[in-house]
Amino acid sequence: MAHIDLGVDEKEFPGVRGPLKYRPVTGKPMLELAETLLRGPLSLPTADRELIAAYVSGRNECTYCCSAHSAFAAALLDEGMTLVEQVRADLDNAPVSAKLRALLHIAGAVQHSGRSVTPELVGAARAEGATDEEIHDTVLIAAAFCMVNRYVDGLGTFAPSDPEYYDETARRVISVGYRNTV
Amino acid sequence: MAHIDLGVDEKEFPGVRGPLKYRPVTGKPMLELAETLLRGPLSLPTADRELIAAYVSGRNECTYCCSAHSAFAAALLDEGMTLVEQVRADLDNAPVSAKLRALLHIAGAVQHSGRSVTPELVGAARAEGATDEEIHDTVLIAAAFCMVNRYVDGLGTFAPSDPEYYDETARRVISVGYRNTV
Repeated sequence: MAHIDLGVDEKEFPGVRGPLKYRPVTGKPMLELAETLLRGPLSLPTADRELIAAYVSGRNECTYCCSAHSAFAAALLDEGMTLVEQVRADLDNAPVSAKLRALLHIAGAVQHSGRSVTPELVGAARAEGATDEEIHDTVLIAAAFCMVNRYVDGLGTFAPSDPEYYDETARRVISVGYRNTV
Repeated sequence: MAHIDLGVDEKEFPGVRGPLKYRPVTGKPMLELAETLLRGPLSLPTADRELIAAYVSGRNECTYCCSAHSAFAAALLDEGMTLVEQVRADLDNAPVSAKLRALLHIAGAVQHSGRSVTPELVGAARAEGATDEEIHDTVLIAAAFCMVNRYVDGLGTFAPSDPEYYDETARRVISVGYRNTV
């Protein structure tokens, strides 16, 4: 049970959906930010952005967000959940491009602390072809999930254990976006 | 110098202001969230909300955000910067209400991890009169600054050392709000 009364059936509105529904005045800009960062017209592929979200959420041990964004990334990737799990388990040996690997290293640093992002990490991403905008977007996606993960777990929300919940949510998010998922 | 070219004079647009200006499509919902959380019509006093922001930013060692929100809180508090510094240095003995102290303990837990927020911490805040909405807002302010701190430092932005910069920014934020500070 969540730490506060969110006024919803937690089985119906698990994870971040309860708090977003509970406080629409803050939920609206948060969903707007998620929609822009994860689905907006930025140059990183949406699958890569969801992979960054899943990777950071996994490192923050946020079961709901990691399960959800892993499912969203898997639905967008040709290699599906296998690749998501490889990235999360062993980034250095996962079969992703050198550029995406370098960006995920930046995201991992951000998850620990903004101060952990070094000129070397940024230089390595740039050497593999990452643009300034892509580096910016990686840092902000990682930072934003450090917010969302803490929001979800700081309120003690419920995380379904059935993978079908996340697969169904992935279908809905991919079809109608974040703004309409609450 | 920031890790990427933000296209602005960093002395003129230090800290979070550079990235917000660089990427207005994400800056807009972030400023909307800040305005709502820190100045919107929520029940916690705005000084307390800025104190939570300063406290979390200090724990994340984010010089720009901690200096800025300490100045904003000081400008709103009768006790000024003395109280802000007491809270940051020794929360358990700082002369704040038992309710605010309990909320700041929740914020400190969120800064570490959402999973560090326990039913005991929430119960202690509730026992001192905190409402569910106030507990929610505390968790989200703390979580949001875990994002902003990482955004600011993850991009290696410049933090002025002159306190006058932050005092002047405080006057502007208090007068016109966050939406118009970039």
